[in-house]
Amino acid sequence: MIDVCLLGTGGMMPLPNRALTAMMLRYNGSSILVDCGEGTQVSIRQLGWSVKPVDVICFTHFHADHISGLPGFLLTLGNAEKHTPLTIVGPKRLEKVVNALRMIAPELPFPIQFIELNGEEEELSLCGLTVTAFRVQHGVICYGYSFSLERAGRFYVEMARENDVPMKLWSRLQKGETVEEDGRIYTPDMVLGEARKGLKVTYCTDSRPVPSITKNARGSDLFICEGMYGDAELAQKAKDKKHMTFYEAAKIGRDADVKQMWLTHYSPSMVRPEPYMKEVYKIFDRVEPGRDRQEITLKFEEE
Amino acid sequence: MIDVCLLGTGGMMPLPNRALTAMMLRYNGSSILVDCGEGTQVSIRQLGWSVKPVDVICFTHFHADHISGLPGFLLTLGNAEKHTPLTIVGPKRLEKVVNALRMIAPELPFPIQFIELNGEEEELSLCGLTVTAFRVQHGVICYGYSFSLERAGRFYVEMARENDVPMKLWSRLQKGETVEEDGRIYTPDMVLGEARKGLKVTYCTDSRPVPSITKNARGSDLFICEGMYGDAELAQKAKDKKHMTFYEAAKIGRDADVKQMWLTHYSPSMVRPEPYMKEVYKIFDRVEPGRDRQEITLKFEEE
Repeated sequence: MIDVCLLGTGGMMPLPNRALTAMMLRYNGSSILVDCGEGTQVSIRQLGWSVKPVDVICFTHFHADHISGLPGFLLTLGNAEKHTPLTIVGPKRLEKVVNALRMIAPELPFPIQFIELNGEEEELSLCGLTVTAFRVQHGVICYGYSFSLERAGRFYVEMARENDVPMKLWSRLQKGETVEEDGRIYTPDMVLGEARKGLKVTYCTDSRPVPSITKNARGSDLFICEGMYGDAELAQKAKDKKHMTFYEAAKIGRDADVKQMWLTHYSPSMVRPEPYMKEVYKIFDRVEPGRDRQEITLKFEEE
Repeated sequence: MIDVCLLGTGGMMPLPNRALTAMMLRYNGSSILVDCGEGTQVSIRQLGWSVKPVDVICFTHFHADHISGLPGFLLTLGNAEKHTPLTIVGPKRLEKVVNALRMIAPELPFPIQFIELNGEEEELSLCGLTVTAFRVQHGVICYGYSFSLERAGRFYVEMARENDVPMKLWSRLQKGETVEEDGRIYTPDMVLGEARKGLKVTYCTDSRPVPSITKNARGSDLFICEGMYGDAELAQKAKDKKHMTFYEAAKIGRDADVKQMWLTHYSPSMVRPEPYMKEVYKIFDRVEPGRDRQEITLKFEEE
């Protein structure tokens, strides 16, 4: 079970009723924050989620609307008496940028570990999730992120017996351990069926539509994607500013066959996203305009 | 005529319904901002004042709740197509701190001029106002600010005639110019009565109560002062954290004999300031608990 919240839907600058785009994800007692703009901490507080379990912050890129809230957020984490390490993930120069911002947040009661991304695609294991960072195409180096929770196969007593697995090892094998006992090696596949469908959340902002997004969004239960402009006449502006229109975003969702999709990162000039949705639905009908603090709890399919 | 707005009343961290403490002042087409925390630009937008005329930002000190909104604010000024210079005033290390934060706001369409404060008290002339920066006592170097609009004496035709001032010079002398004509020097005091009472706004946060505040607040039409704690039992905490209680602040207002006073910079732990005011009024009855986006227009007294 993963809780996901889209903390805001704005791009460029925070507005009175539209926080900057960021996402928070809760799994198994830990939280991961993706981006932290000016006011992200206020949105978390409005939502009522605790900041203290935030163990990881992933940055898509270093434009101010995605990172300007970091110093205040770090201090608020400190005030919440976080003492466990915080891992910060982001493009290269991460440590340099964070340390510059920490000029106004120098004293924190927890250590910070940095993971600087370099490749086109990197896979990390964080908070029990598989996190895939993938390069997208913006004015500066920018990454999208997929968060996957894998789900092992079902446990079959018959298989365990067929493979002569001692009953005392069943539980450990079921949890994924490999065990050596009396000179024989027992592996999880001796007791488990094929891996079942897990959960996957993909987040991408800011970018032009590029194949890496479609590839990584594939199979997502939730795909959160930027759509800076709803007005089709702003297609050229979207190109110039290295953003997407709603229609470009919807095509990615359709091509990646995601289960559901939320648009976000609206231009401050867009009063409401709804008027554009009729045309968007013609491309893909499982997309909706994201709302500030829109939440969902993703659960494993019954099986 | 000066418009003043207290943009927020919070200290430490921004809350959903309490922006961080900052002040904006409008005079004669220019605006001055004092401090710029996370969300200050949102409060200005809610207020409906334009950011573009902001020609000066004065920083009290470099704690994050007073400066963390700067990168976003600078970018928003740029988006508003400001091209005229911005002057930033603050304690020493100002340029270093601002440049560190500009790591995420590197490209701006206007130049920035820095005025670093060094002394115990410094007088500046900014946007037609006399700005006095005075050292206060906080955990780091911190300044309070007084903004004074001077008002010349009244113009007396009789004086001008008595002093044989040619009529064609009257208007220039009235505006404060000194003029040489036919070998004789004409000064404003030849046509003007004694200087009349001007307008004065004093702003102080964060600090312990120290004499420099009382001295500089004296004669203020509006005195905005921190009061971190309303609960009298938190007096020791106020001392430890280098802040003030409402009662300490009210004593300064009383001793400085200010015309009116607004409290601000409330601790996030204080739900509402009102319950403490009954005791505060016993000390000084021209003080009130500041509210977010509380505005006032200060006008010259009739004369």
